[in-house]
Amino acid sequence: MNEPNYEARRGKLIKKFREAEIDCLLISGVSNVRYLTGFTGDSSWLFLSGQHQILMSDTRYETQLEAECPGLDVEIRDASSTILDMSAKLILKSKAKRPGVEGDQLTVSQYAALESRLTDSPAKLIPTSGLVERQREVKDKYELEQIREAVHIAERGISVVRSSLRPNQTETEIRYLLEASMRDFGGTGPAFEPIIGVGPTAALPHAHAGMRLVSEHPVLLVDWGAQNHSGYRSDLTRVFITGKPTKQIEQVYKVVLAAQQAAIKAIRPGAACVDVDRIARGMIADAGFGKFFGHGLGHGFGLDIHESLRMSPLSKQTFEPGMVVTVEPGIYLPGKFGVRIEDDILVTTQGCEVLSSVPREFEEAFVPFLA
Amino acid sequence: MNEPNYEARRGKLIKKFREAEIDCLLISGVSNVRYLTGFTGDSSWLFLSGQHQILMSDTRYETQLEAECPGLDVEIRDASSTILDMSAKLILKSKAKRPGVEGDQLTVSQYAALESRLTDSPAKLIPTSGLVERQREVKDKYELEQIREAVHIAERGISVVRSSLRPNQTETEIRYLLEASMRDFGGTGPAFEPIIGVGPTAALPHAHAGMRLVSEHPVLLVDWGAQNHSGYRSDLTRVFITGKPTKQIEQVYKVVLAAQQAAIKAIRPGAACVDVDRIARGMIADAGFGKFFGHGLGHGFGLDIHESLRMSPLSKQTFEPGMVVTVEPGIYLPGKFGVRIEDDILVTTQGCEVLSSVPREFEEAFVPFLA
Repeated sequence: MNEPNYEARRGKLIKKFREAEIDCLLISGVSNVRYLTGFTGDSSWLFLSGQHQILMSDTRYETQLEAECPGLDVEIRDASSTILDMSAKLILKSKAKRPGVEGDQLTVSQYAALESRLTDSPAKLIPTSGLVERQREVKDKYELEQIREAVHIAERGISVVRSSLRPNQTETEIRYLLEASMRDFGGTGPAFEPIIGVGPTAALPHAHAGMRLVSEHPVLLVDWGAQNHSGYRSDLTRVFITGKPTKQIEQVYKVVLAAQQAAIKAIRPGAACVDVDRIARGMIADAGFGKFFGHGLGHGFGLDIHESLRMSPLSKQTFEPGMVVTVEPGIYLPGKFGVRIEDDILVTTQGCEVLSSVPREFEEAFVPFLA
Repeated sequence: MNEPNYEARRGKLIKKFREAEIDCLLISGVSNVRYLTGFTGDSSWLFLSGQHQILMSDTRYETQLEAECPGLDVEIRDASSTILDMSAKLILKSKAKRPGVEGDQLTVSQYAALESRLTDSPAKLIPTSGLVERQREVKDKYELEQIREAVHIAERGISVVRSSLRPNQTETEIRYLLEASMRDFGGTGPAFEPIIGVGPTAALPHAHAGMRLVSEHPVLLVDWGAQNHSGYRSDLTRVFITGKPTKQIEQVYKVVLAAQQAAIKAIRPGAACVDVDRIARGMIADAGFGKFFGHGLGHGFGLDIHESLRMSPLSKQTFEPGMVVTVEPGIYLPGKFGVRIEDDILVTTQGCEVLSSVPREFEEAFVPFLA
């Protein structure tokens, strides 16, 4: 069992202050605060400087903070002041000249309100971008253990769903069974609202589960994940064949799978995300389905279901050991059906490891007692 | 059955442009976009000017948009461009000189990225605050119907939980039973993660349900709500007495209830939120529990569980007919127990209407077959 080392994470972040040309940092993103402190609530911001590490929160969380963040300095406000007031006071007290804020998290209004509290002081706010998010891209041992568990819970859940499939089940029934099964295996909730689509609904990459019956179409798409007890997530997609598939279904399935496998094979330290995206996108285009694959190839995940690492034609990042990323090409034929196959990948020192092991071959996608 | 009139909502918003000194508005808040268009996805922004109403989205949502937003102009991007690129193009094409953005929604980084795409143009971005959020504070007939339904679903759910209570149930078991029951009555999910706290856990205003047993302490606090099929929410809290209460439990319960009832009685058009907050806060302080009530008295809700209307010592708003708000005073005794009683209130032309009807008197809080 690894334990999270929040102090080490904060120490690593503080070492980046010089390069970012800031002398302290106000961390307001809720998952960033959790990553750096272990605190599971919201409405709480972390102030970090070389001298001080202070979590600002309110009376609702006073007792919870003692349990979750022992040893961390905490300042508590009641309903008569705001977190912006507290933040400004800490910045002024620290005498920081270049206090950093999280530009990807703070809203324009919050920034202006904070700035207005610092007039007539030498402090000049510096918006930073992705400081904590980039650190979170590379997972530590504790995080990888949590993510493996979230994958495991998702896999156990889908195996219950698969073995329970009936022709008269609705997408919504499947969604609730899947969520309940993942809880039974220790998940604290779905990683996101599961996407369950039969036939034409599967052609909507982000469909809400509705009232279509499994028996309406041979394609059933399930995009799901679990959240484990410490908030880490998994994200998988499988297509099940629940009836006699057309030639087109088989063709589309095999193109998507081949594109996915080729992309995974290309993932290794130093590989550019844009190049891996191009491999899958190119194979789908070569098969004549280019305009039916419009989203990115994959994304980082962890405490959030979408983290900053992205694989798309616009990506500028390269892979490093310890990064985790989804690989999820898809082909969506409007009004007909859609296929997406998604796995969770860990970048290793040598190449990569596929964390998820739900069968994905076309022949394995059949649900025998149905099809 | 009332139907939502998205066009009328957009028309009402556009009429505010002159006062806000903007000639168009980029709406990026996900619930604001839903409120103005009916679109239930994310990652999609709405551009509104006197001449054009365009929803910018991506290929994942192409088919869904046709179903959810018929008649609305839609622009779709693929993975090779960003929503900021699209937004800048629309602003430039509109020749707007003072394009408004949502300062409470856009991040500092998004603002800077958009601004950098408009250099060498006459367009000067204007951060606005609360334009859509303030419009959403007053609910229309359709919205009130949805909120009433969300309250109804929550009430049916808690009645199942109450009648199923057993001494050996854990907080977590209660949470899942409550969530499942609300689904059975038509909810699409909980309005937020339900807070289920026994004894000392009830003293944490925002606790996660854990493994405490109902039988561990006579106080069981449940803070829950439902989300209905169109995304509207409810938000209620009740305390159940599941064993022999101490005198202090009875005293605290009655102080909280009296404070809540007095506050509700003061809600009417023209009343200042700060004054209603002061009534409840004063009564709790007079009873000697002032330092054990640190959060605000209540908040608006609807598509979001926390909307911009707030009752706290810092509030500057006054009530108008059609607003809905929670009233939820509490007293939290660390290590011992907590009591919060919360109802959903609609401001009417004459005064207010309590939308929720779960019994709240002390005598009614007993679960007879347990206590």
